[in-house]
Amino acid sequence: MPVTKAYAAQSATSPLAPWTLERRKPKPHDVEMEILYCGVCHSDLHFARNEWGMTIFPVVPGHEIVGRVTAVGDHVKKFKVGELAGVGCLVDSCRECDNCKEGLEQYCTQGAVMSYNSMERDGSGLTYGGYSKSIVTHEDFVLHVSEKLPLAAVAPLLCAGITTYSPLRHWKVGKGMKVGILGLGGLGHMGVKFAVSMGAEVTMLSHSPSKEADAKRLGAHKFVLTSDEMQAKNVAGYFDFILDTVSAPHDYNFYLGMLRTNGVMVCVGVPPAPTAVHAMSLIFYRHTLAGSLIGGIPETQEMLDYCAAHQITSDIELIRMEQINEAYERMLKGDVRYRFVIDMASL
Amino acid sequence: MPVTKAYAAQSATSPLAPWTLERRKPKPHDVEMEILYCGVCHSDLHFARNEWGMTIFPVVPGHEIVGRVTAVGDHVKKFKVGELAGVGCLVDSCRECDNCKEGLEQYCTQGAVMSYNSMERDGSGLTYGGYSKSIVTHEDFVLHVSEKLPLAAVAPLLCAGITTYSPLRHWKVGKGMKVGILGLGGLGHMGVKFAVSMGAEVTMLSHSPSKEADAKRLGAHKFVLTSDEMQAKNVAGYFDFILDTVSAPHDYNFYLGMLRTNGVMVCVGVPPAPTAVHAMSLIFYRHTLAGSLIGGIPETQEMLDYCAAHQITSDIELIRMEQINEAYERMLKGDVRYRFVIDMASL
Repeated sequence: MPVTKAYAAQSATSPLAPWTLERRKPKPHDVEMEILYCGVCHSDLHFARNEWGMTIFPVVPGHEIVGRVTAVGDHVKKFKVGELAGVGCLVDSCRECDNCKEGLEQYCTQGAVMSYNSMERDGSGLTYGGYSKSIVTHEDFVLHVSEKLPLAAVAPLLCAGITTYSPLRHWKVGKGMKVGILGLGGLGHMGVKFAVSMGAEVTMLSHSPSKEADAKRLGAHKFVLTSDEMQAKNVAGYFDFILDTVSAPHDYNFYLGMLRTNGVMVCVGVPPAPTAVHAMSLIFYRHTLAGSLIGGIPETQEMLDYCAAHQITSDIELIRMEQINEAYERMLKGDVRYRFVIDMASL
Repeated sequence: MPVTKAYAAQSATSPLAPWTLERRKPKPHDVEMEILYCGVCHSDLHFARNEWGMTIFPVVPGHEIVGRVTAVGDHVKKFKVGELAGVGCLVDSCRECDNCKEGLEQYCTQGAVMSYNSMERDGSGLTYGGYSKSIVTHEDFVLHVSEKLPLAAVAPLLCAGITTYSPLRHWKVGKGMKVGILGLGGLGHMGVKFAVSMGAEVTMLSHSPSKEADAKRLGAHKFVLTSDEMQAKNVAGYFDFILDTVSAPHDYNFYLGMLRTNGVMVCVGVPPAPTAVHAMSLIFYRHTLAGSLIGGIPETQEMLDYCAAHQITSDIELIRMEQINEAYERMLKGDVRYRFVIDMASL
């Protein structure tokens, strides 16, 4: 078994530190790739610190993975050695349930296998993520990555990108629609770029005045300071669609009130506690509150192709592997515009 | 001004009692009707007892009104004296906003005028509802009622009927869909009848075993006792659509867990307090939680025509006007199958 360098957390309280792990030899349908860049998602931090109570240590986080193919199994037809490739949150699923058949592997009813901290379907062991030098993945879960885009800035598309792209597509956001993006972080900044590219009128909803200039730079047409009562009142009943990317506690009802008749708010962030919803916030003007989880493999490929066609990537700050613990601390303070990406050459 | 007999509450603590009120003389577009039957909705009780804090006394409740036209204004073309007619929750709206133009008068952005306890648009006074002998209404808000159906059992269609019909239509419930109806009361029993008539597989979700026989009699194909853990587990991820008619406190997350991928739960009941919603209940399997408020005038007419074509009416218990206070007490105990209707001949 090939040994690969990685960074792992050994316990909920220990910082991430060098470790080594074994990757399997490519099976007939596997793609082996050298990881060149890996994005840093907030869930990496949740897992490293066992904040969701489900971490099995040691854990190697990372599910925004891009690199170059170094070997392929005998039956692999989709990828060749030397090509760019990507791996996101999903590395396996049953392929047999209705959801898998429809390309919604993230909702596999037998439970999708995630890129890290997940048991392989054959029970052979846990998965380890992208904070490492290489990864071996079944070709069905490997994505094609364009040579045309700056590769480091492509990495966050594999999670932050698809998480925001998928609900905008599912709810048919496009020209003539007024869209609010709630929260300007790793997810929100991708939401702005996508919604603008789809032709919608895009408003950034933020409680932080310091985000206005950046929101406009990213393409947002308007900015509403949600802590300003007058500004908030001005958008009552205004939006067709709100993408709620906020994971901090916040009042759904306040934002539901900004939807027009038949308006839809989709949550992709997970606040630490349940949120109180007034039935009246839904009943009046026939509002919808929905959720969305990343995206399936076909839609992830569609999103990557869309990004190549529209020159869309993430705004990133490149870090070295040994800066990861510091990056987590800065992430907790919102001090990143808008995604840390690890340069794996540094490992 | 013609004087008409009515029943009114004079304060939040006084029982409903005889009163008289003046109805306007029919204006050119008005329809005057003798009220023959009026359904008793739970919101009547909320208003009579000022439980929503917005009642202006005296209040004459009642918004499930059927009767016979006794006079029409000079310009009225849709109705003739002697015809059956109905009036529901709405008696006026601006007609100019986008929602009114689309026939969604219940969401009139200038505020629809409700059948009782609402200010007329010209400021001429409050509206008084159907617990009375007659009513005068602009023809735009008067519905045609079939002679083919038992009239007393038609009355509840004007609120309980349209409130359940509208979301089933909006979300395209039909053949091949698995539908859960949550709660078997005035709304729920109509939900069962409609969903069955639309070709769905219908399951009654109730915590009361005593409702099973009745649910089946109404046409439900299955019954799930929600207090039985095994029965509830068996429908995890099962439904395409759940119509939640419950106004008592209940856990939305529990029922959201019964939805399959892309499943939709629509609330038409208003619990007394906001309900805690886990983002995870929405994000996993891309669930939707939505609301719906009665229905607009065109859809109410469509529903009444549909009921005539499909022989659908409400299950009712006919009462005399002087039994209304007793009926309220029984309604609070859920002791009605499934709607009280007042025989206005008794007034």
